[in-house]
Amino acid sequence: MSIITLITDFGLADEYVGVMKGVILGIDPAVRIVDVTHAIEPQDAAQAAFTLAAAYPQFPKGSIHVVVVDPGVGTERRLLCLESDGHFFLGPDNGVLTQPLCRASEGGLRLLQDPAYRRREVSPTFHGRDILAPAAAHLSRGVPAERLGPAVDREGVVRLAGMEAETAPDGAVLGRIVHIDRFGNLVTNIGRAILAAAGVEVPGTAARIHIGGRILAGVSETYGRVAAGMPLALIGSRGVLEIAVSSGSARDFFRSRRGDPVRVFP
Amino acid sequence: MSIITLITDFGLADEYVGVMKGVILGIDPAVRIVDVTHAIEPQDAAQAAFTLAAAYPQFPKGSIHVVVVDPGVGTERRLLCLESDGHFFLGPDNGVLTQPLCRASEGGLRLLQDPAYRRREVSPTFHGRDILAPAAAHLSRGVPAERLGPAVDREGVVRLAGMEAETAPDGAVLGRIVHIDRFGNLVTNIGRAILAAAGVEVPGTAARIHIGGRILAGVSETYGRVAAGMPLALIGSRGVLEIAVSSGSARDFFRSRRGDPVRVFP
Amino acid sequence: MSIITLITDFGLADEYVGVMKGVILGIDPAVRIVDVTHAIEPQDAAQAAFTLAAAYPQFPKGSIHVVVVDPGVGTERRLLCLESDGHFFLGPDNGVLTQPLCRASEGGLRLLQDPAYRRREVSPTFHGRDILAPAAAHLSRGVPAERLGPAVDREGVVRLAGMEAETAPDGAVLGRIVHIDRFGNLVTNIGRAILAAAGVEVPGTAARIHIGGRILAGVSETYGRVAAGMPLALIGSRGVLEIAVSSGSARDFFRSRRGDPVRVFP
Repeated sequence: MSIITLITDFGLADEYVGVMKGVILGIDPAVRIVDVTHAIEPQDAAQAAFTLAAAYPQFPKGSIHVVVVDPGVGTERRLLCLESDGHFFLGPDNGVLTQPLCRASEGGLRLLQDPAYRRREVSPTFHGRDILAPAAAHLSRGVPAERLGPAVDREGVVRLAGMEAETAPDGAVLGRIVHIDRFGNLVTNIGRAILAAAGVEVPGTAARIHIGGRILAGVSETYGRVAAGMPLALIGSRGVLEIAVSSGSARDFFRSRRGDPVRVFP
Repeated sequence: MSIITLITDFGLADEYVGVMKGVILGIDPAVRIVDVTHAIEPQDAAQAAFTLAAAYPQFPKGSIHVVVVDPGVGTERRLLCLESDGHFFLGPDNGVLTQPLCRASEGGLRLLQDPAYRRREVSPTFHGRDILAPAAAHLSRGVPAERLGPAVDREGVVRLAGMEAETAPDGAVLGRIVHIDRFGNLVTNIGRAILAAAGVEVPGTAARIHIGGRILAGVSETYGRVAAGMPLALIGSRGVLEIAVSSGSARDFFRSRRGDPVRVFP
Repeated sequence: MSIITLITDFGLADEYVGVMKGVILGIDPAVRIVDVTHAIEPQDAAQAAFTLAAAYPQFPKGSIHVVVVDPGVGTERRLLCLESDGHFFLGPDNGVLTQPLCRASEGGLRLLQDPAYRRREVSPTFHGRDILAPAAAHLSRGVPAERLGPAVDREGVVRLAGMEAETAPDGAVLGRIVHIDRFGNLVTNIGRAILAAAGVEVPGTAARIHIGGRILAGVSETYGRVAAGMPLALIGSRGVLEIAVSSGSARDFFRSRRGDPVRVFP
């Protein structure tokens, strides 16, 4: 019994997610399907890439992650199946798979091409239903990835820039807000590793975090360390630096938007 | 192992959908439950009917489709179980089952009446939980449809008008927008068959599509055929004519609303 | 095969609910997971408590109900496992379990403490994923509740006030609106038992229900008993008094808000 996860920009009002599940269950009635989110902004491949990066490590090895954020549907863009870190990833070649692509230098990368693992009729506007869902379901039933299509060279595959923070010559870590969650927490692309490499104490009081024209002192361990309404920086549950406001919204406090810069000085 | 799908106007904020699933799993712990949508506008039977028509053919034969859009709950309106096209359909007799009713001239049609397949106590305000969910779960466990209640004459059953487009004396196909999806695509009730009968070339450049005071030339194959921001008509993934805007929203472009007319001249 | 239900304030846009499911399925691949709601207002323990009370009795005995509305995550607040009424309830000690706690004077109450039933690394900001989800999954696989942690004295556990209505010296039942559903129905905390004890006829015409500066006469059986647009009181599907407007919204009619008082005079 395996798991298929879904990340799409379909929302939940239309029947698109439901019919993808109908197609999957028609091929593998025993698979478990988990919705990660269907609230990706329409056609926002970067948001899908960050969500996938945050979500997939929480699933058991062998899980199959399907991403359908596909503005190029019906054009010549390719559909891929990547094996990385013990998981499978299926999605269009538009950057949504950037993070597992970068993480694993090895592992199979295939085109979804064999018509035997598609629906008989393929709509030019809904490859999620007609190509990605069936391929995932066949994988889940035990079809080897090699059967789905020919191997692809990793070099030509689209990778999004800015998935990870960088270290500046002066030693500061330069990142940005890549997600704002329901509680108004600001999630950055600044991971533990780059903070450690830059000599930032975590948790600790030495660091200075520049965000929205303000400076926060230190990286806390959890929300409860400051008074209600006060901001703090901490390593969130995704393993990256987050800016939060105790019992409040950091989005409102800092008037932040996705993409805003965050700099950390050790 | 069978599949029960759900279409309701309950939304996802209340616990109504969850408790229907609790009732179903209490009767058939092995059934797979798929949410098609719970975002039908409150009490909008026509929207539910269109969603059901679009969704059910994507599920495997033998699936059980439950529609709970039921403004008449607690009055004398009947609850039905229809067998059509190899699927089962359960819902109130208010038009939500129009399309599978029209599609199949044969197949069983039953009242949900036998108390053995309801909950012991039936709330007068939530038949979805107390009658429809248990009936679907019993069907899924293998109870024959005939046991759910007596046969009903098809003649007296409510059918919604306007589910399908019509051909005018001058040869034009007269349809309307029956759904607008998350991406702003305008979904019509104009199917391939009526277009073929009217001599409309699909795909092709000859047809003229009148919508919102404008005229589109031809029916494209997919979104990528026009420049970004430009409108086009195509046969969408539901198999009906859709109006889209490449990398944009046709709803915004045409200022369209559900119900607006669409005319196609061959 | 058992059932785990989820009530959270996570919404569906972030990946939080999905990753909790990933963790659960990694431990018990066969469990059925049901979303009750993820639309609890952020950090609103009372709303979660009412939703749990309304939902859990509709699930089969043996179900495991997980509530993650947890403003105190990362502080010293405790995480609990309660056995009551044949169900299991897991959540923080902040009142979300008030109703099953009050309903059952016996049944086990445990701390979630044994690291064997947590994830190896516990984030200080996401105990839903790292403690509650694994504990629920282990329970579902058959681990006895006693293994999760030491017994806790019921006396020190947080209980929310106002979960149930009261009877005033003059014989009136004093309650309030505890939930407003998608249709605008006003759900109160006034149950059948307290109405019966106060001598209120249900259904019947004698009672006077005071709400929003108006007085409704009698308790109806179902929505269809008054003309469209007219208000009525009835016992809703949760078994408590609800105020509805036939084919309309009682929220709009009465301009009601959660917390508003409702008084019933026999």
